[in-house]
Amino acid sequence: MKKFINSVDQVLTESLRGFGAAHHDIVRVRMDPTFVARAGAPVKGKVALISGGGSGHEPLHAGFVGKGMLDAACPGQVFTSCTPDQMVAAAEAVDGGSGVLFIVKNYSGDLMNFEMAADMISGDQATVVTNDDVAVEDSTYTTGRRGVAGTVVVEKMVGAAADKGADLAACKALGERVNKATRSMGVALTSCTVPAAGKPTFQLGEDEVEMGVGIHGEPGRKRVKLEKADAIAHTLMSAIDGDLKPKAGAPHLLFVNGFGGTPSMELYLIYDAARRYCEARNIKIARSLVGNYVTSLEMQGCSLTLVALDDELIKLWDHPVHTAALRWGV
Amino acid sequence: MKKFINSVDQVLTESLRGFGAAHHDIVRVRMDPTFVARAGAPVKGKVALISGGGSGHEPLHAGFVGKGMLDAACPGQVFTSCTPDQMVAAAEAVDGGSGVLFIVKNYSGDLMNFEMAADMISGDQATVVTNDDVAVEDSTYTTGRRGVAGTVVVEKMVGAAADKGADLAACKALGERVNKATRSMGVALTSCTVPAAGKPTFQLGEDEVEMGVGIHGEPGRKRVKLEKADAIAHTLMSAIDGDLKPKAGAPHLLFVNGFGGTPSMELYLIYDAARRYCEARNIKIARSLVGNYVTSLEMQGCSLTLVALDDELIKLWDHPVHTAALRWGV
Repeated sequence: MKKFINSVDQVLTESLRGFGAAHHDIVRVRMDPTFVARAGAPVKGKVALISGGGSGHEPLHAGFVGKGMLDAACPGQVFTSCTPDQMVAAAEAVDGGSGVLFIVKNYSGDLMNFEMAADMISGDQATVVTNDDVAVEDSTYTTGRRGVAGTVVVEKMVGAAADKGADLAACKALGERVNKATRSMGVALTSCTVPAAGKPTFQLGEDEVEMGVGIHGEPGRKRVKLEKADAIAHTLMSAIDGDLKPKAGAPHLLFVNGFGGTPSMELYLIYDAARRYCEARNIKIARSLVGNYVTSLEMQGCSLTLVALDDELIKLWDHPVHTAALRWGV
Repeated sequence: MKKFINSVDQVLTESLRGFGAAHHDIVRVRMDPTFVARAGAPVKGKVALISGGGSGHEPLHAGFVGKGMLDAACPGQVFTSCTPDQMVAAAEAVDGGSGVLFIVKNYSGDLMNFEMAADMISGDQATVVTNDDVAVEDSTYTTGRRGVAGTVVVEKMVGAAADKGADLAACKALGERVNKATRSMGVALTSCTVPAAGKPTFQLGEDEVEMGVGIHGEPGRKRVKLEKADAIAHTLMSAIDGDLKPKAGAPHLLFVNGFGGTPSMELYLIYDAARRYCEARNIKIARSLVGNYVTSLEMQGCSLTLVALDDELIKLWDHPVHTAALRWGV
């Protein structure tokens, strides 16, 4: 295992300490229980948004804490759910009196822990579960579809609405609406290595890719020979397209998400291929996002996400955001 | 070679086409000769900043085209200098009547081609050469020190000054001043694969790292066994520190640059280690940047950069910037 680490036990603590110091204008990192809060939280009168889950997907979620997005993120150990005490401490720290909305990716461990936390919290709270991955219906750690890169879009849209004063019920309804308008699917060219395991999560042959891979390396739809980028983009987009059934001529967000180890050059090449797929089918791309946002450590690969937009969602997407990983308008 | 590509010949064209479409609000991509110009260029009365060099280092340079930074970038083939016709076409497209400043990383091929371009341009022009890499004095493609991640800092500072109305001579003088205040050194955990070569640029043993590696995989100071992150950060920082001789208590920028394949989690862990080095030596960190900015395709590794700041440089760093890869204040 070749990684920049001092000891397996300290990876998360040292990385979070670095993150907190580098972005002290945006966040505060708290330890034991561990969470990352927006600097200046709680914001009085605003619904507080909290997400969390296993680490190793950075910048998700701590990189999305800040004005116009999350109020707190609870990082678990690598690829391991955060615990209820983290969520409870985060909720107590950032609840501004208008309730807390938990945004949870659909993994059984995450759901169980967020439900336990919800039972322990006295204030108003609600939960949105994301499940945008069209690859498989059930998976290693999931009943139903997995929550993957589309979670960033839910966090951005609901974060904007909360910033504009939407109440808890409206934030929950919006989160569920955005999740329903969002579909993703990924492909892995390589595995990744969890520090505590010390060896690759799975094995792929020199010429193989995992089509429909999960963000923890869970199996996808099939293992196939490496194809040209256009063919890979076609496989992912046609699965998304067939499931979302986009309305011809309506605006969409096209999001190419790198898994951590794929060069920017290749992500833009895949974006070009996915965009040509959309243009041929009259799927209008009104907004775009390309980069490493929901990663799997150093995995080489990417996911594509398509989101059906409307005027309200475009305004929420464009709303100012100031986080470590997404920033515009401020 | 496992990459998202259609054909080796089309990698650059398709990637740039995707980049241009994804960031149509910021840039325009021109082909034959190929360059990326700021949307709305030329800006009348502003000094135009142009950089360029081999591709494979993305987001450098095209990701830094936009308000407050570059007016144009000339991407060569992967790890290959751009050609004089690209630079001439870019200069003609973005010169707003106040001259053109070329920002060139110190590689022999780049220098030769930029000098040829300068001879072919009729308008006012000047050049700043960056050479921030303390690892080695001469290298595979370089006489003198290599220009590496510090180039981003030069482009940011001079871009801000040009945006505020500095003339060509002032922009050149500032660029040289920032370059002199900047030192970098990198380390590779793995090699990278140039698409046209189809195999890794160099070989490293399972437990080896290349200390002082160049951004094209050029040899560094020594090949050593993988050490703990604190020891690696200490080696890089002490080389930088010994060369820059930072003034105790004066403000500095600490920049951790990922080479493309290293997870965010590890980059922040290295930032934490480098910051502790600085704190122990009373090197004050006033600004920070952590992420993939000057990459070597999918190479795992990172570089550290330290820049001696002052009030003027802090204001220039904080000045609004709107590019694909750096954005704040707008």
